[in-house]
Amino acid sequence: MKSDIDRLMAARDLAAIIVAGDEHVNPYRHYLTNGADVTGGLVIKKHGADPVMIVNGMEIEEAAKSGLTVYSQTDLGWHELVKEAEGSRTKAQVAFWGRCLEKLEVKSGKIGVYGVGDLNVFIELMRLMNPVYQQYEFVGEVGTTLFDEAYSTKDADELERLQSVAVRTGQVLQAAWDYIAGCRADGETVVKADGTALTIGDVKRFVRRELLDHDLEDRGMIFAQGRDAGYPHSRGEKDVALRLGQSIVFDLFPQEIGGGYYHDVTRTWCIGYASEAVRKTYETVIEAFDISVEVFGVGKPTHLMQEAVLDHFESKGHPTGRSQPTAQEGYVHTLGHGIGLNVHERPSISHVLREDTFQVGTVVTIEPGLYYPEQGFGVRVEDTMFVNDSGELISLTDFRKDLILPLNT
Amino acid sequence: MKSDIDRLMAARDLAAIIVAGDEHVNPYRHYLTNGADVTGGLVIKKHGADPVMIVNGMEIEEAAKSGLTVYSQTDLGWHELVKEAEGSRTKAQVAFWGRCLEKLEVKSGKIGVYGVGDLNVFIELMRLMNPVYQQYEFVGEVGTTLFDEAYSTKDADELERLQSVAVRTGQVLQAAWDYIAGCRADGETVVKADGTALTIGDVKRFVRRELLDHDLEDRGMIFAQGRDAGYPHSRGEKDVALRLGQSIVFDLFPQEIGGGYYHDVTRTWCIGYASEAVRKTYETVIEAFDISVEVFGVGKPTHLMQEAVLDHFESKGHPTGRSQPTAQEGYVHTLGHGIGLNVHERPSISHVLREDTFQVGTVVTIEPGLYYPEQGFGVRVEDTMFVNDSGELISLTDFRKDLILPLNT
Repeated sequence: MKSDIDRLMAARDLAAIIVAGDEHVNPYRHYLTNGADVTGGLVIKKHGADPVMIVNGMEIEEAAKSGLTVYSQTDLGWHELVKEAEGSRTKAQVAFWGRCLEKLEVKSGKIGVYGVGDLNVFIELMRLMNPVYQQYEFVGEVGTTLFDEAYSTKDADELERLQSVAVRTGQVLQAAWDYIAGCRADGETVVKADGTALTIGDVKRFVRRELLDHDLEDRGMIFAQGRDAGYPHSRGEKDVALRLGQSIVFDLFPQEIGGGYYHDVTRTWCIGYASEAVRKTYETVIEAFDISVEVFGVGKPTHLMQEAVLDHFESKGHPTGRSQPTAQEGYVHTLGHGIGLNVHERPSISHVLREDTFQVGTVVTIEPGLYYPEQGFGVRVEDTMFVNDSGELISLTDFRKDLILPLNT
Repeated sequence: MKSDIDRLMAARDLAAIIVAGDEHVNPYRHYLTNGADVTGGLVIKKHGADPVMIVNGMEIEEAAKSGLTVYSQTDLGWHELVKEAEGSRTKAQVAFWGRCLEKLEVKSGKIGVYGVGDLNVFIELMRLMNPVYQQYEFVGEVGTTLFDEAYSTKDADELERLQSVAVRTGQVLQAAWDYIAGCRADGETVVKADGTALTIGDVKRFVRRELLDHDLEDRGMIFAQGRDAGYPHSRGEKDVALRLGQSIVFDLFPQEIGGGYYHDVTRTWCIGYASEAVRKTYETVIEAFDISVEVFGVGKPTHLMQEAVLDHFESKGHPTGRSQPTAQEGYVHTLGHGIGLNVHERPSISHVLREDTFQVGTVVTIEPGLYYPEQGFGVRVEDTMFVNDSGELISLTDFRKDLILPLNT
């Protein structure tokens, strides 16, 4: 969690970290600045000190909402540096980073550079930066990064926000269920009151509006039916009409408006009725879900959970990413992932990435699924869960796991 | 435009470009893949050839919608590389890039790396990558990049999408106007039918819903009143009630759902009436807008437009970023910016960045403004405009520039 950052910096021998990036959604910046809604500048945290924001003069007011110390680029001499560099903003930028570090009394050492931004810009800036500074070494990080480690447990403030997003997401699921249930069947097609087909586009539009009414934003929901549901990441075609008896994989992962915390939930619904094949597969997936939760324990490696699910699916004759790594059907993904300001964070619940363990404050998705596109269906069930202070794995997701969605009339 | 990329690659001596990045909104990827909605992988364009996508097996179906050749990571031996690297995904990734380039018969040369992603990851990957490959040099780019140049003119397909977003944005502005006009005054406060105050939060929520109904997404609109309107980038406080006679800066820059083209428009509204100071300032800003359009010409440097506006504001006694570079009031920003898949692209219309010129196919915002937070107001007026085949600067924005928004009752 956030209070671990100084320890994580020390472990990497970092004198400071710089979070850079422009107007892209930047979870690193959100994390360090308590969600201040700025579109550029730098956030610098010296080891042992609070982060400081350096922003364009126009963003002073927004930056101040972070509660952090804020300097304007002008205060730190940006305009003089541009002049000295004879108008070269690139040269000025290289000089400006040193100026900022001096201001924060970071005298020397390794400086970790993080953030979300234009890769080409920062790859080139780093190439220019390192030869200029004898006293600093600017470094990136791949693998399990400082932020991955910090993100991997949540503090009480974060959990409160995650809980709130979870509750609101459950309300949106209920509204979507009611919206579909309020339609009727014309043959095998679901139709609206005016007799026209209810399409995936209609449902997505309804859900996006409901999300907004709950101060949440869609980040690309999946609502995929039949064969499309058999491809885990197919998002669903908007002109497709909903049909009775088809498996619908509905994966909703909204975020607080403006780039905050996520929730992630998947339900598989069959409107009216389900085929025997889908029903049986659904039961197997629910069993996998329950088995995975049973093998959970604080301090235990996360891969044990994935392996229990692999064992279960394989024992029922399904191909998996372990038994047939290149398979496009059966169980073809990992069991889950951490979630917070990013929809995918550490820990991973994978049999390949084996380094992660569960800790108090871990927030993860659990999402077993089975996919048979050639047979025209897919099934996935997912909750977002957290490890509470007593070391129990508790679901944050507040919505029932029914397969059949009956129409009211 | 897109058809310039081979020429722009040759000018940089690039044998290939690689667009990387994970689940962040990635305009580079959108541009090269015709908007394919994938969350990772690589897009590689060899000089003289069409781009090719390399994605996770789960994203094959979405990637195929690009119309490009698609390989799965599995096809290219990802799993074997992870094994060879004894489970180190970082090592495997370093090897994988070479594997992909070989597959596309890129034998040697400079490889430009672009995209939006985690800076730390790619800074470190580049440090690891370059020593491994004798035959390739992976390079970033800052300043006026290949994509900046390509983006700076739009082709007919892009213009059509930009026009569609413009029309829909105008409809949303009209709906917002009607929503506010349908309220009434209680003293100086604007109130809804139920007698409670109409807040900025109410308006933003209404606008976000309207945007969705037009297949657009809000990317952080500004709706700032009074003193807040005097800070160009203050977004507006949601609990603040709308009041008569206050200047409201409403800056709306929605994007096609899922990360496509933007529109950018600002209007300044005073509900019911405006003070003499705001009215006079508004007239000066409209004059600046008209003057800037008059000095426009194809082939002309963009900075001439900014300078004409600076001259005008300074002649009326307003401080500017030229006369007082550190000023926090008066005219404190540039006149405009290119817009497309990014809300801010080249060209810049700035007196500092002086390299850009107008060309047929340029799409830019024109947005003069004057800010007086201490006097409790700010004014900005902005259209998105394009240079047509006849070399005329035409507004895409379809909404009138009225200052006074009268209540219906």
